[in-house]
Amino acid sequence: MANGVPTPLGHYGPDAPVVLEQPLPREALPTPALVLQRSAFERNLTAMQSLVSGYGLGLRPHGKMHKCPEVARRQLAAGALGLCVAKPREAEVMARAGVGPLLVTSPVLAPQALDRMIALRVSGADLTLVVDSFTGIEALAQRAAQAGVVMPVLVDLDPAMGRTGVAPGPEALARVEAVVKAKGLAFHGFQHYAGQVQHIAEAGERQAACEAHHEAARGLVAATEAKGVPVAVFTGGGTGSVFYDGPAGLYTDLQCGSYAFMDQEYGVLEGPEGTLLDSFATALTVHSTAISQPREGAITVDAGLKSLWPSPLPAVLDLPGARYFFAGDEHGVVRFGDGGALALGERLRLRVSHCDPTVNLYDWLWVENDAEEIVEAWPIAARGGAW
Amino acid sequence: MANGVPTPLGHYGPDAPVVLEQPLPREALPTPALVLQRSAFERNLTAMQSLVSGYGLGLRPHGKMHKCPEVARRQLAAGALGLCVAKPREAEVMARAGVGPLLVTSPVLAPQALDRMIALRVSGADLTLVVDSFTGIEALAQRAAQAGVVMPVLVDLDPAMGRTGVAPGPEALARVEAVVKAKGLAFHGFQHYAGQVQHIAEAGERQAACEAHHEAARGLVAATEAKGVPVAVFTGGGTGSVFYDGPAGLYTDLQCGSYAFMDQEYGVLEGPEGTLLDSFATALTVHSTAISQPREGAITVDAGLKSLWPSPLPAVLDLPGARYFFAGDEHGVVRFGDGGALALGERLRLRVSHCDPTVNLYDWLWVENDAEEIVEAWPIAARGGAW
Repeated sequence: MANGVPTPLGHYGPDAPVVLEQPLPREALPTPALVLQRSAFERNLTAMQSLVSGYGLGLRPHGKMHKCPEVARRQLAAGALGLCVAKPREAEVMARAGVGPLLVTSPVLAPQALDRMIALRVSGADLTLVVDSFTGIEALAQRAAQAGVVMPVLVDLDPAMGRTGVAPGPEALARVEAVVKAKGLAFHGFQHYAGQVQHIAEAGERQAACEAHHEAARGLVAATEAKGVPVAVFTGGGTGSVFYDGPAGLYTDLQCGSYAFMDQEYGVLEGPEGTLLDSFATALTVHSTAISQPREGAITVDAGLKSLWPSPLPAVLDLPGARYFFAGDEHGVVRFGDGGALALGERLRLRVSHCDPTVNLYDWLWVENDAEEIVEAWPIAARGGAW
Repeated sequence: MANGVPTPLGHYGPDAPVVLEQPLPREALPTPALVLQRSAFERNLTAMQSLVSGYGLGLRPHGKMHKCPEVARRQLAAGALGLCVAKPREAEVMARAGVGPLLVTSPVLAPQALDRMIALRVSGADLTLVVDSFTGIEALAQRAAQAGVVMPVLVDLDPAMGRTGVAPGPEALARVEAVVKAKGLAFHGFQHYAGQVQHIAEAGERQAACEAHHEAARGLVAATEAKGVPVAVFTGGGTGSVFYDGPAGLYTDLQCGSYAFMDQEYGVLEGPEGTLLDSFATALTVHSTAISQPREGAITVDAGLKSLWPSPLPAVLDLPGARYFFAGDEHGVVRFGDGGALALGERLRLRVSHCDPTVNLYDWLWVENDAEEIVEAWPIAARGGAW
């Protein structure tokens, strides 16, 4: 590259946590700021790991939620068997930071993306890919054989979501056979993610929706093993379905992600005890400052659509009855309730709408201790909207 | 900082364009990718500069849209009188990259943010801030006087949008007087941005909505000058209102932003000739690859809510009749129309919903020449969701 400047293709930002020499009072943080309350986060890691271990399963948290190598390291230290990522770039960033084993949960199809995943495997990364088309199986197998590596793969199943994967029937079995025959591939099992059931509000209804997809999957596993092909891995599930996928006797590991930070979308769901916020705490907030007051009873804050994902609406913490509304890319309007007002220059904290796309808006995650001091900053190294 | 590692507060990524030694064919670009067609972009810069110059006004493009110093440099080279930014961090990044003069278009209120803007002014940046509260005027004036600098300020007016600013009447005049009296501040004029009129679809209705706010503003300018206070600057407007704010005899410069890249939101508006896409071309697209085909008549691509802003729906280019729908954070489903299908591994281009928050999702902007080759990559240096 010109003058030795790396292109974006080879550009990686910092991935190691920065420990502040002096703790920063919460009030000194520039806003809008993405803040992780460390003890709530660590409690969430322990709670999910215990829950999943109690089902006799492994936990393979989804790194697409946080895109942060330091969060991944702590999930692995808490007992996770590996990390899911959504795309090639995330796999590269995590591998570079020493995080693994890695599973890329979307099919990889573009030639350059396949080449990069092969290169990662050649470099020694413990990497598994998913496949769902003969085109994809062929393209991957050819490259793996050419590079002299064996790529572990899972066949991606579609539990009637219509996004990726194939139905758990003869179509899936045909893919298994193609993988088994391919020289550069090793069949490890199945991925089965029912994204459409994760946010069903009522617990019984969510349970029924989860279980509706289990029977066909069990049939496919039996049919695969009847052909003498062992199914070592059956991975899937999420924070909304863990209570029903866990005891199903189908999965070997679960891919929950949002439990680590939590958000408004998962927080309002019915759980085994009240809502999911009774099982996993709000560890992630956005801090915002009041900068203008165009009318009585409300105030304008400095966090809008570029720092908070729009839907569902973020929830105002610390100011009872107050409600946040978006007012464009850079601003929100907080309407006061019975619990008092916010003055110009004062701050508030918001529980975010959906943690995954909110975290994706930021370069850094500030880490707060129990004394409400910011003590570290963790790079969200795999963000950037890219490949 | 520990081990000399900079904290996020002091962390700046690359801000200079990278020229690729070898042009990259469009098809070799990793997806999802944010791509700027250079000639369309340059034509947009020329078209808007000519239009605004024709009204006898200055153009002060809004940098919140692109957050990219190289785009700003080209806007200035095309004749812009300066650049708007939305927040302190953007001002810091642009000043560091040598871009100016700068206007921060939101009131700055948090103590640390005020300190940083004073530091920027002390360092020699040609910087103007807006104020709308006595609290803000006092806090800024005190710091400016203490630092021995004079900070140019505009009083931010609210054309009934209810976000920031004060109504253009006695309240605004009282702020002018406070600014004039304050030792560390210099009153330069007014900012008047009617965001709520920018996206009214029908041209006549949009014109009427713009003009509805001009009369009160004219009265305020006259009242200010009647007190012997000159109004050197009256800035505001956007891509949707330029045709009506331009000839109003009120503004001294206009803050248009989206015209440079264009998007679906502005593209569908009625303009002086057909739609606004007849005045300004689609220079920005997201390229995405087909990775899975769970059903006939549609295909799943690798760009979802983390690489495309959700609303309004992005438009599929190059595949007539095809429509894009979101399928979660990482995926979209393209339903085919009469114009053919897309096969696994093939790519398509999408006109983005709203350019500002879409650009904010990416670290790099790829620049394409007329031969459909990628020739440069420009860092979106001021992004990151932060302060």
